[in-house]
Amino acid sequence: MTPEMQGRSDDRLLDPAAFEAALRRIGAERYHNHHRFHKKLHGGQCSFGQVQAWALNRYFYQSMIPIKDATVLTRMGDSALRREWRKRIEDHDGMEDGLGGIERWLRLTDSLGLSRDDVISARHVLPATRFAVEAYVEFCRSRSLLEAIASSLTELFSPQIISERLSGMLAHYPFVSRDTLAYFTARPEQAQRDSDFALAYVMREARTPQEQHAVMAALEFKCNVLWLQLDGLWTAYVEGAAPPGTWQPTEASTVRAA
Amino acid sequence: MTPEMQGRSDDRLLDPAAFEAALRRIGAERYHNHHRFHKKLHGGQCSFGQVQAWALNRYFYQSMIPIKDATVLTRMGDSALRREWRKRIEDHDGMEDGLGGIERWLRLTDSLGLSRDDVISARHVLPATRFAVEAYVEFCRSRSLLEAIASSLTELFSPQIISERLSGMLAHYPFVSRDTLAYFTARPEQAQRDSDFALAYVMREARTPQEQHAVMAALEFKCNVLWLQLDGLWTAYVEGAAPPGTWQPTEASTVRAA
Repeated sequence: MTPEMQGRSDDRLLDPAAFEAALRRIGAERYHNHHRFHKKLHGGQCSFGQVQAWALNRYFYQSMIPIKDATVLTRMGDSALRREWRKRIEDHDGMEDGLGGIERWLRLTDSLGLSRDDVISARHVLPATRFAVEAYVEFCRSRSLLEAIASSLTELFSPQIISERLSGMLAHYPFVSRDTLAYFTARPEQAQRDSDFALAYVMREARTPQEQHAVMAALEFKCNVLWLQLDGLWTAYVEGAAPPGTWQPTEASTVRAA
Repeated sequence: MTPEMQGRSDDRLLDPAAFEAALRRIGAERYHNHHRFHKKLHGGQCSFGQVQAWALNRYFYQSMIPIKDATVLTRMGDSALRREWRKRIEDHDGMEDGLGGIERWLRLTDSLGLSRDDVISARHVLPATRFAVEAYVEFCRSRSLLEAIASSLTELFSPQIISERLSGMLAHYPFVSRDTLAYFTARPEQAQRDSDFALAYVMREARTPQEQHAVMAALEFKCNVLWLQLDGLWTAYVEGAAPPGTWQPTEASTVRAA
């Protein structure tokens, strides 16, 4: 039993409907669509440089997702379960060169004028991004498999944010097009499939109040992983207090935004 | 630099031909086709119980291979590399239920009258098997990616042992058939593809004498992982000194062997 499986005062086992409702409530309260940076991004209030900063930092998160998912695979003793989970890696790495979610994200950073070398090396990524992403991988390595799978449940809420993002960004930014946002057109269907699977898994495998609480805590943890990345962007590129050594908008960014 | 990258007295960089020859010499000297248990198995000298013990213990190794390969995936920062390595997991877990190398191995243990529950739980596996396999996974987790990939190079030598095994076992044991040995008919082609890739990788990426030595040491390590599993079988089921709590041939095993 991990520490998160203890210590909530309410120790009744929730019935399936109540358990699912509790999980959805976590998303309703904590998912990063509520973050002020996303409201600014989707509402067309970001400068070109702020959109660049978002895409560059978010690439690091994207690039680590297959590594996170391979970490989860190493925890799975069963071929059928691994076969299901493997699809996530296939979605991100693609079936051949030039395909896959990571490649589609690079099309976005390309279109924003960022150098692939800068983006892929992650050398100018914010510490907030790096530490949040690394905490996520480590969580999936060290916690129970149930918690690792539960931490993916933010995908329950991603179709909504993606539709807000697509329409908001297309409407407001001349420098993005449906093609540069290709990443997002493929995601809702994948996220739906994956979150259906993960939700069914945690509903089935969380058999004690402690396990249900651990699932909820894992989802809250993951909401924090996403939230912190936007806090970092806000501090660095809205307040203008970027930590030393991190990415800085160039003159060109400012000109293009005008 | 890991300890294995230091301390060999000969520190010249080998040219590609000499490096490959050195790797092949390791196989010629240390691969487990030279082990007395394999000679006995392939030569038709094993009892039914000894063949059962081999299949049951080897299942544990097989079942951990996708976990080993997912561990290697977590070390790979590049989509193209992961895409290549992913094939190994696909081969073992299959593309759907009832397919894949692990399932084919279970067909062998089924045909030998072993209960799937006994086999899959691994609860009666020899400590030699368990520790060797766990050491392999840990090696791939903690050493450099170059060493992790190099440790797969025993596959350079597996097509030969598989052909000896297929012909030897089919010729000598009435209780095995080409169908029960289906695992081995699929393997040579996969092993060829995988070892071609791994060999090209280490030839390209080992750029210093220390790295070449580390590659050789990784291959020697892996030969030991395989060798120890057969030592364990010999001690337990040829010498008859099986550790407490490990699998024992039943009366039925003895009868069927007669």
